This record gives sequence, C-alpha cells and structure tokens, in this order.
Amino acid sequence: MSNRHAIVLAAGQGKRMKSSLYKVLHPVCGKPMVQHVIDQLNALQLQEIITIVGHGAEQVQEQIGDDSRFMIQEEQLGTGHAVQQAESVLSGQKGTTLVVCGDTPLLTSDTLEALIDFHEKEEAKVTLLTAHAEDPSGYGRIVRNENQDVAKIVEQKDSTEQERHIQEINTGTYCFDNEALFEALQHVSNNNAQGEYYLPDVIEILKNRNEKIGAFQTKNFNETLGVNDRVALSKAEQAMKRRINEYHMRNGVTLIDPDHTYIGLNVTIGQDAVIYPGSTIDGETSIDSGVEIGPNSEIKNCIIGQDTTIKQSVAHDSLIGARVKIGPYAHIRPSSKLADDVKVGNFVEIKKATFGEGSKASHLSYIGDAEVGNEVNIGCGTITVNYDGENKYLTTIQDGAFIGCNSNLVAPVTIGEGAYVAAGSTITDDVPDSSLSIARSRQTNKEGYVEKMKNKNNN
Amino acid sequence: MSNRHAIVLAAGQGKRMKSSLYKVLHPVCGKPMVQHVIDQLNALQLQEIITIVGHGAEQVQEQIGDDSRFMIQEEQLGTGHAVQQAESVLSGQKGTTLVVCGDTPLLTSDTLEALIDFHEKEEAKVTLLTAHAEDPSGYGRIVRNENQDVAKIVEQKDSTEQERHIQEINTGTYCFDNEALFEALQHVSNNNAQGEYYLPDVIEILKNRNEKIGAFQTKNFNETLGVNDRVALSKAEQAMKRRINEYHMRNGVTLIDPDHTYIGLNVTIGQDAVIYPGSTIDGETSIDSGVEIGPNSEIKNCIIGQDTTIKQSVAHDSLIGARVKIGPYAHIRPSSKLADDVKVGNFVEIKKATFGEGSKASHLSYIGDAEVGNEVNIGCGTITVNYDGENKYLTTIQDGAFIGCNSNLVAPVTIGEGAYVAAGSTITDDVPDSSLSIARSRQTNKEGYVEKMKNKNNN
Amino acid sequence: MSNRHAIVLAAGQGKRMKSSLYKVLHPVCGKPMVQHVIDQLNALQLQEIITIVGHGAEQVQEQIGDDSRFMIQEEQLGTGHAVQQAESVLSGQKGTTLVVCGDTPLLTSDTLEALIDFHEKEEAKVTLLTAHAEDPSGYGRIVRNENQDVAKIVEQKDSTEQERHIQEINTGTYCFDNEALFEALQHVSNNNAQGEYYLPDVIEILKNRNEKIGAFQTKNFNETLGVNDRVALSKAEQAMKRRINEYHMRNGVTLIDPDHTYIGLNVTIGQDAVIYPGSTIDGETSIDSGVEIGPNSEIKNCIIGQDTTIKQSVAHDSLIGARVKIGPYAHIRPSSKLADDVKVGNFVEIKKATFGEGSKASHLSYIGDAEVGNEVNIGCGTITVNYDGENKYLTTIQDGAFIGCNSNLVAPVTIGEGAYVAAGSTITDDVPDSSLSIARSRQTNKEGYVEKMKNKNNN
Repeated sequence: MSNRHAIVLAAGQGKRMKSSLYKVLHPVCGKPMVQHVIDQLNALQLQEIITIVGHGAEQVQEQIGDDSRFMIQEEQLGTGHAVQQAESVLSGQKGTTLVVCGDTPLLTSDTLEALIDFHEKEEAKVTLLTAHAEDPSGYGRIVRNENQDVAKIVEQKDSTEQERHIQEINTGTYCFDNEALFEALQHVSNNNAQGEYYLPDVIEILKNRNEKIGAFQTKNFNETLGVNDRVALSKAEQAMKRRINEYHMRNGVTLIDPDHTYIGLNVTIGQDAVIYPGSTIDGETSIDSGVEIGPNSEIKNCIIGQDTTIKQSVAHDSLIGARVKIGPYAHIRPSSKLADDVKVGNFVEIKKATFGEGSKASHLSYIGDAEVGNEVNIGCGTITVNYDGENKYLTTIQDGAFIGCNSNLVAPVTIGEGAYVAAGSTITDDVPDSSLSIARSRQTNKEGYVEKMKNKNNN
Repeated sequence: MSNRHAIVLAAGQGKRMKSSLYKVLHPVCGKPMVQHVIDQLNALQLQEIITIVGHGAEQVQEQIGDDSRFMIQEEQLGTGHAVQQAESVLSGQKGTTLVVCGDTPLLTSDTLEALIDFHEKEEAKVTLLTAHAEDPSGYGRIVRNENQDVAKIVEQKDSTEQERHIQEINTGTYCFDNEALFEALQHVSNNNAQGEYYLPDVIEILKNRNEKIGAFQTKNFNETLGVNDRVALSKAEQAMKRRINEYHMRNGVTLIDPDHTYIGLNVTIGQDAVIYPGSTIDGETSIDSGVEIGPNSEIKNCIIGQDTTIKQSVAHDSLIGARVKIGPYAHIRPSSKLADDVKVGNFVEIKKATFGEGSKASHLSYIGDAEVGNEVNIGCGTITVNYDGENKYLTTIQDGAFIGCNSNLVAPVTIGEGAYVAAGSTITDDVPDSSLSIARSRQTNKEGYVEKMKNKNNN
Repeated sequence: MSNRHAIVLAAGQGKRMKSSLYKVLHPVCGKPMVQHVIDQLNALQLQEIITIVGHGAEQVQEQIGDDSRFMIQEEQLGTGHAVQQAESVLSGQKGTTLVVCGDTPLLTSDTLEALIDFHEKEEAKVTLLTAHAEDPSGYGRIVRNENQDVAKIVEQKDSTEQERHIQEINTGTYCFDNEALFEALQHVSNNNAQGEYYLPDVIEILKNRNEKIGAFQTKNFNETLGVNDRVALSKAEQAMKRRINEYHMRNGVTLIDPDHTYIGLNVTIGQDAVIYPGSTIDGETSIDSGVEIGPNSEIKNCIIGQDTTIKQSVAHDSLIGARVKIGPYAHIRPSSKLADDVKVGNFVEIKKATFGEGSKASHLSYIGDAEVGNEVNIGCGTITVNYDGENKYLTTIQDGAFIGCNSNLVAPVTIGEGAYVAAGSTITDDVPDSSLSIARSRQTNKEGYVEKMKNKNNN
C-alpha cells in the first residue's frame, strides 16, 4: 500500500447557513459535520489528515483536537487555494491524497476506501467520486467517452440539453496522485468571474496532458450529500438517523416509528428493547435488553438496566437499575442512582439522589441531595428541603422508612430505619429508627361557618 | 393592465369531509382553507374578489370579513351556477376573471399571477391552469393537438386507453375573458345526470365557437391539490408545513426534524434558533435568535427573547425574556411576563404572573395572580392561594425574598423585600422586609411507636 | 363453493428478528402478526384453519386460542415439511387449501378471497399470489410464457440478466388443490444445500406433470410484505398505521399529522374529532365526536364523551364524560370515572376516583381512591392520603365542597357537602356539611431576623 493522505476542506463560512457558527460545526445527530468526516477518515489508517480551516476558526480546531493536523487558509481564495495550504506538509511525497469536504457528513470510510483502492488500482492521476442521481439537476455531470473514460465534467449552467440528461454526477470528493496534485495546482489560475482558484481546474490540466482521469461511481448517492444550508442539514440529519436506526433494528431493537426516533451515535441498546415514538436517546447511553423507552422520553448519558421502563420522562447523567419504573412525567436529573425495582412516578423530580432497591417515590415529589435506603416509601408531595438560600444539605432516609404525604424533610436530616413520618409534617430534626414523627396542628371544625360567611357576604 | 377580478367558489358543503363545519373552513396549518385562497388573491391587487357562499354559510362570511365581497348561492346547482351568482357585479365589465376553488389552499399568488399574465398575453377567451401529474388517475386530462393547442379536456371515465397516459391534468382553476364568461354561461344547460350547471361546459361552448382556449402548465403540481376529504386535508397540511418549515430553515433556523415540527403561518424565528421534534409553535409568536424550543413543546402567542430554552413545556399568550430556562414539564399560562434570566422548572404552573429578573420557581409550584420581584427564590411546592371559592386575589413577593418549600401564600398577601418564609408555612398575613415568617408546628418523635403499632396490629 | 381450508406457517423462529419472542408474535399496531393473519382468514368462512407451530411454541397457541387448530412441527425441516403436518387433518379432502405465512400481517381477506376465487375459477392445481414490485430485487420472479401462463419461478440468485428485470414477483402465498398438494408433497425431497423440504418444489412437480399453474397478481404489493427482521417490522407497522389512519380520516376525523399518530385497531372515533401529532390511542377506546386529543397524549382503554379535550396527558382504563378538560400534563390512572364538565389540570394524578359533574382539580394534586361529588373545587396541591403503608382507604368529598390548597385528606375521611377546608390543613377527621375545617399553625413574623442571621454568618 502506498502512502495515503487526506485533506479536509473546512474553511468555508457557509453563508447560506445564516449562522454565527462555522458551517462544518453544525451538528448532524449531535456530532459536528466535520467530526463525522474526520472520524471516517481515521478509520482508514492514513498517514496524515490535514484539515484546512479558515482564519479565526479556533472552534473548528478545538472540536477536532488531535484527530487532525491543521493548516490555516488566511483568505478564502477558492478550493484550489485551500488545498495548496497543505503543500508545506505533503509536497514532494509519493502516494495518494484524498480531498474531501468538511460538509459531507454522510460519507463512510467504506466508500472512501473503495475510492482510494480503485484510484490506486487504475493508476490514475486523479479519480473522481461520482454517483448516480435520480434527479441530477444542479450537479456537475460526468461526460464519458465511448471507452467509458471520463471525457469531462460539465457544470449545470454549461451543459447541453443532452448532457443535462446524464445522471452520473460529480460529488466533489477526489483522489489525487499527490505529486501530480501539487504540481498541477501551480498552474491553476484565478482568471474567472469569482477570482478564485478552483480545485477542479487541476483535473482539466491533467486531462490536457493526457493523464489518466478515473471516476469511481458509488452506489450510495445519499452518502455524498453536501450541506450548504439548513434544508440540506435537515436531510443529512434524516439520512444519518435512518442509518443509526436501521443499525439498531437489525440488532434486535424494536422502533415503533424509526422516522420519529432520535438516537445518538454513541448509544448502545440491547435486544428486545422497544423504543416508542418521539423519544430522544443521546450522549453516552447504554440500554440493556427488554427496556421500554417512551413515547416522548428524553434520555441522555444514562446506563439503564434490564426490563426498565421510562415513559414520557426525562433522564440525564444517571445510573438506573433493572426493572425500574419511571414516569409518566418524571424527571431524573444528573448524578442520580436508582437501584433495581425502584419506582419513580408522575411529577417526581430526582436530583443527585441515591435510591436503594425497591424504594418508591410515586407522586409529586422532589428528592434532591438525598440518600434513600431500600424499600422506602416516599409519600406523595414529599419535598427534601435541601437549600436554605446559601448552601445545599443532605437528606438521609434509611431502609424501610415511610414518609407521609406532603412532608418536608429539612436537610441536613436523617429519617431512621423503619421510621414513620406523619402526613403534612415539616421534619427539622432527626427521626430515630422505628419512631413516629409528627409535626402538625390539630384539626378544628367550625360547624355552620360556611353558611354564616355566606350570609355575612350577602349583607 | 386590464381589469382583473376573481371569483372564489366556496359554497360546497363538502359531504366527503363528514363534518358539521363547512368544507372551506377546515384549517390548514391553523388557517381556514378559504382564507388561504383569499390571502393569496389579495396579494394580486385585483379589482374585486367575490366569494360565492352557500345558503346559511354565515361562518364563511364571518371568517373572511372584509377581505372579499360575498354572493350567496341559495341552491347548489353546480359550479356554472355558482359563478353566475357574480353576474350582477361583473357582467358587462371588460377584463379578466380568475375562478378558483375555495378548497385549494396551496395555490400561491405567484402561480395565479403567472396564469393571468399568460392568459392576457395569449389573448385567450379562457385559460386553464394545468399541471404535470406523476399519477394522473382520477383527473381530467388535457388533450393537445399537433400545434400544442388544447383540443379538449377528457374526464377519467370518458378517456381512451391512450388518453389515460396523458400526464397533463386540469387543476380546476381557470382564467376567463370576463365578457365571454358570462355570455357563455347563459348557454350552459343542466341536461346531465346530476342536473347541474357545470363551469367546464363554458370551455366547450367557447371551443365550439373556435375561440382561443389556453392552457398554462404550472411546474408546481403540489400547489393545485383540491381538498375533498380529510385524507386530502392531511396532505395539504403536510405540504403547507413543508413550505413553512423550508422558509424558516433557509432563514437560518435549525429544525431537527422538519416532518415533525408544526409552525403556524404568523410565527417569526430568529437565526440560530433550534426547534426540536414534536413541537408546535402557533399564533402570533415571535422567537428571537438562539432560542431552543422542544422537544415536544407547545408555544402559542408568545414573544420569546434571545437564547431562552423551553423544553417539553407549554406556553401561551405570554412575554418571555432572554436567557430564560423553562421546563421540562412547565406550563406558562396566559398573561404571564417573565423577565430575563428567570427559571421555571419542572411541574411548575405560572398564570397571570410577573417574574422579575433572575427569579426562580424551580419545582412543583403554582404561581398565579402574582407579582414576583427580582432575584426571588420560590421553593419547591410553593402555592399562591389566589382563590377563596369566590374571588381571586394578588400575591406580591418582593425583591430577594426566599420562599421555603411547601409554603402557602394566602392572597392577598405581600412578602417583603429580602424576607424569608420557613418551609411548610401557610402565610396569611404580610411579611415585613427582611423578616422570617414561620407558621408550623413543632416536631414530636414518638420512639418505638412503629413497632408498638405492628405488635398491636398483629394481635 | 368447494371446501376451503387454510394452513398458516408459523413455526419459524425468525433468527433475524434477534428476539426471545417467536417471530409471528411480534406485534404490528399492537396485535401479533399471526393474529392479523388469522383474523383475516376468519373473515373468509373457511372450513378449517390449521396453524403450524414450532416445538415449544405454547405462546403462539395461547395467543391464537380457539381461532385455529394447531399442528406442531417438531423439527424445522422446511416449508414443505411444515405443510405436511396438516396432512392428518386435510389429506383426502376435496377442495382448496390456502397456504399463508404467519409473518405477512398486511394481507387482507379481500386479497385472499380474490386469490381463492381466481384459483377455483381457473381450475388450477396451484395458484401463486404474485405482485408487481417497483424494485423486485431479492424476490423470486414469475416467468410467464407467450400465453401468459406461468413458465417458472426463478430465484434472484438463479436469474438471468433479463429475468432480473421482471417485476412480477412471488409473494409466497399459495392456493392449492388440496388433494394435489398432499399427493405432490410426498415427492418433495430434501436433496438440497439446506437439507430442507421446500413447498415451492410442489409447484415444479405439478408443472412437470403439465398440471395447470395459475398466478393471481394483486395490485397491492404492500400487502404482501413478509417480516423477517425489525426493519421490515417497522415497515409493516407504518403500512398498517396508514391503513388505520386513512380509515379514520375518511370517517370524518382530522389527523393533523397521520404519519405521527398511532391508533390501535380497536379504536372508534367520532366525526369532527381532532387528533394532534404524537398521540397514541390504543386498546378498546371509544372517542365521541368533537373530541380533541393531543398533541402527545396517550389514551388506552377509555370511553370519552363529546367535545372533551385531552392535551399532553395520559389516560388509561377510565370513563371520561363530555366537555371534560384534561391537561396539559395530567395522568388519569385506571378505574377513574369523570362526569361531564370535569376539569383535571396540570400535574394532577387521578387514580380509581369518581368525579361528579363540574368538579375541578386544576393543579398539582393527587386524588386516589376517592369519591368526589358534583361542583367540588379541589385546591392546588391537595393530596388524598390513601395509604398508611399497609392498606388503602377511601376519601369522600361531597357536593360543593371546597378544599383549600396544599391540604392532606387522611383517608378514611369524609368532607361534607359545602364544607370548606382551609389551605395547608391536614384533615384526619370527618368534616360536617357546611363547616370550615382548619388544621394549621398561626403565623409568626420575626422582624429583622434575616439580617441578624446574615451578620451572624458573616462573623
């Protein structure tokens, strides 16, 4: 195998995105476009990946970090000029150089590898990645001669009626003989309407020298989508979503409506899990077999055990055990840890709290900064009063405790093992094991009061 | 430019809609179909728009109001008869009359203007709006002769095998020479199976007189959809949704899944806003740049400031500042006003309340009929007791106050600046500035109580 | 009409499903695939339906119950072998035998009946159900001779370049002359790579005897989808969803986004109901006219009266009257019964409770195990304390009572007619009619306390 390199063109501002964010940083399924490209390139074991970034594009460098070397294109003088920025690194080296745009997030390493292999086998000076487009309008068409060799690339505006029917299109991804590339680039001129140096001019220069121009047609037109505006961005998102979702379905996950299920790239899901529509599963999330998520749940950075169900709820950055029942309308906030068989019911918020096995908070509660033991029953409306306006304090509820409804547990406070807090109590002091704690007023009934008030009001 | 008029056919009951609502009043993206048509016509600067409505269709008139003149078709005797209702207004006038159905909500003024311009340039007596249909079955086909002139319109049922392959179809929208229209209408008979007067018969009458029949083929077949049942209604909704969403995406708004994002016609959205799936944004809503909405949020008639996020929540008829964080599962009800940097967390309902800058109601609270100052912290479970069964009263919470968890603020009541309400208190009287207010019972622990009860229960 | 039988092939494990559940038990729109097939067959009034199940497939038998007779295929030796399991029941009988796979949930009785009718009219020994596929790759192609008779079926891998262009494909559903079927099956060998007995070999055997082979081409290619993995399962789900949703739309129901509306097979919906996106309606649910569901609501096994609205809420196994307003973010749990004009607002959970006409629980409440009279107002934050850790008890709230905010009603307890519970009270004893009941502490304001504490903290 000869030396292989790649140049990623990532300096374009992307005016049509109408964004304060660099075009290549716009995410597709949660990952910036240029990172998709770099990740695919990294799978190819190249000698060098060079990303051409624009002036002031620190964010792009920050995103990619050590995954690529950077060259800065101070002025945006065209794609040919952009590639030239890599000259100081690559010039004079033998081998193959892949040039790929940072706004083509769907390209796979398989396709890129097939392109390079074809290029090297054909011993071409340049090979275009082409694709068959159902509707080729707008694309440059590949005109082949009778030997099926590439005769030329015709842009839409320069095409004849006959050429416009050609469905093989130029995707804008190229493989070059590295030496030929940098030699030819020196002859590219900016003598055109935009005053820019165009990379495709290299092809014409090589063609005029009767060098071999190859064209490798991928079957996956969809992979070649370049994103120039948010309409295309939404199409890339949809295509990537389908790719991810098909992967999970083939792995034994049921997606009731894959068109409306949003799964990130770093999510693993076990067999016989069912994801209901309208759910988002993102970040570093791992879901065990038999789990049911949704409808309309949002999960991020969670580890979820077998046969757990999370209905119409939000859970972030938490560990959730097996057979846990969450929702509908529950909110598990970061740093929570729910053991097996826990139940978190409707309108319950859990924050930075640990729940032992079999414990329950079934309704309308806020349990934050708390350690809850096993088999605890937290009554409806229970609130851990964890904040005094300055600091946050810990609530401890020990095994088997029963917290009555509408109780306040004013932290720091400990409810002992098997203790019982009466409904409506505000607990400020520790409750010993097996004790009943009560903090409420006696009831007084004022008979006839309502009618008296009515009479009074009517007078 | 000659005189231009339009007649909107809106008298049909629409039996296949199976509805108690007049067909043309069924909404598409929140706006009744006939209003879509009228709005597009109004962009054309016509001399007169006449809407033909059925007997008793006051609702249609009410909807359209001053946007059109009305003529009532007492009996439903066919489209020709419907157009005749405009005779008293238009008869004898020179110029062009556009006839358009009230159930074609997707037609744009651009297409209609192109039709009229073509008609007038061709000096035809009638010009049909035609379109190329991928699947023409069910439509009337346009048969053209060797000069490409319209030879005839053939209905599906009368068509030969060869004619059925014609893909140019009649959309049912027409431009007429006004005088020719009303003259020819007098010769239309109801000698047919339905006993109705058909408008297309005018075309045949003019054709038989060797008058010029034009056909203007729009490229936008999708615009010409006529809605006769709810399946077609859902298709119109989808097409309009795509049109709206593409507009926002081209403007610099990211829609993660435009197929599942529902934005009304009068919504403005700033650059770099992100709308997550399953969200509805409706009414007169204005969203500033950088805002994040959804997933699964519902916004109606709100003004929302920069960089605010509204996750899994509902907000109606309210003013929401910049950098506000709402949700998940919050409900902002009408007449609320949240200043910059406010936080409204999970399971919180805000109704007719003002929040000053930086104030927070993070969990499980109801704040209704309230004026909340700046930097107020409203604890979990706080309730403004605004209703005594007869009247509603105001709660005032002044700057920097801290309301402890599970408090009741029995309105009318004022919590002074910097005051502190202890958790679990029911506050019925005003709290002075910087005071601590407390209204709860002391805690009693009954040790060993739980075991005693168990023993008792077991005996 | 001759004797008609059907054999359902349901013994396959379905390895590509990657599931612990038998393939044919995977649900499509909530109903197992094989049950879809059996239900369609049952509409055909057949003499006998025999389902071939695998060893240990008790779950399949349990699912189908009395809807079919069962034969067990102990070893999976191919489709021909599977059909042979029915020999003891069907052998020697005259008539027609339909063979259909248990993984084709979209086939309709109309199509199957048309197939049988065609078969019997043609007096064929076997008739294939074929379909026109836009993309036939992967399917067996139907090669017809110049008389349009079936010449042979060619599998993809054995097909010539020319044959691969044939778009008529074999769906895998067959009609046989019953006697010919079982006679020919005896001649089928397992002399092939897999060592299995293939049902299609019967066709070749009959063909070689110059028996008549028919082919009935259905227009509904989509019906013939066989489900072998979860990607196909999701496509079947989508196709069935569209079929169900189109049925409701044609019936006069508005679905704002039918692609994103999930309605079960046993749901009835009245005219002019509107279903907003993201909603699931399932089980035995009946929805009256004018009802509005969603967005993002989940309804299961409910009966819902006219003009009720259920926004962003979950309701299961309950009776809900007319003009009831539920949501957003409410949860109606099983065995609840809401009379007309009830209101259940945000963050309210109702469980096993009855509400009389016009009663309201508008915010942040839990009403479980309760009988609520007419025109009761349940204040925000009210909790029925129905559980003492061992048993559940009933709360009774009589007509016209007013429950103040953040009250606890400790069951068993009765609040009398027209009684008034003061906000923040924990009620443990019955409240007589028209009485005011109060159970809370007096408020104390400690002036200057906050500043004193601050000074203290700062020292």
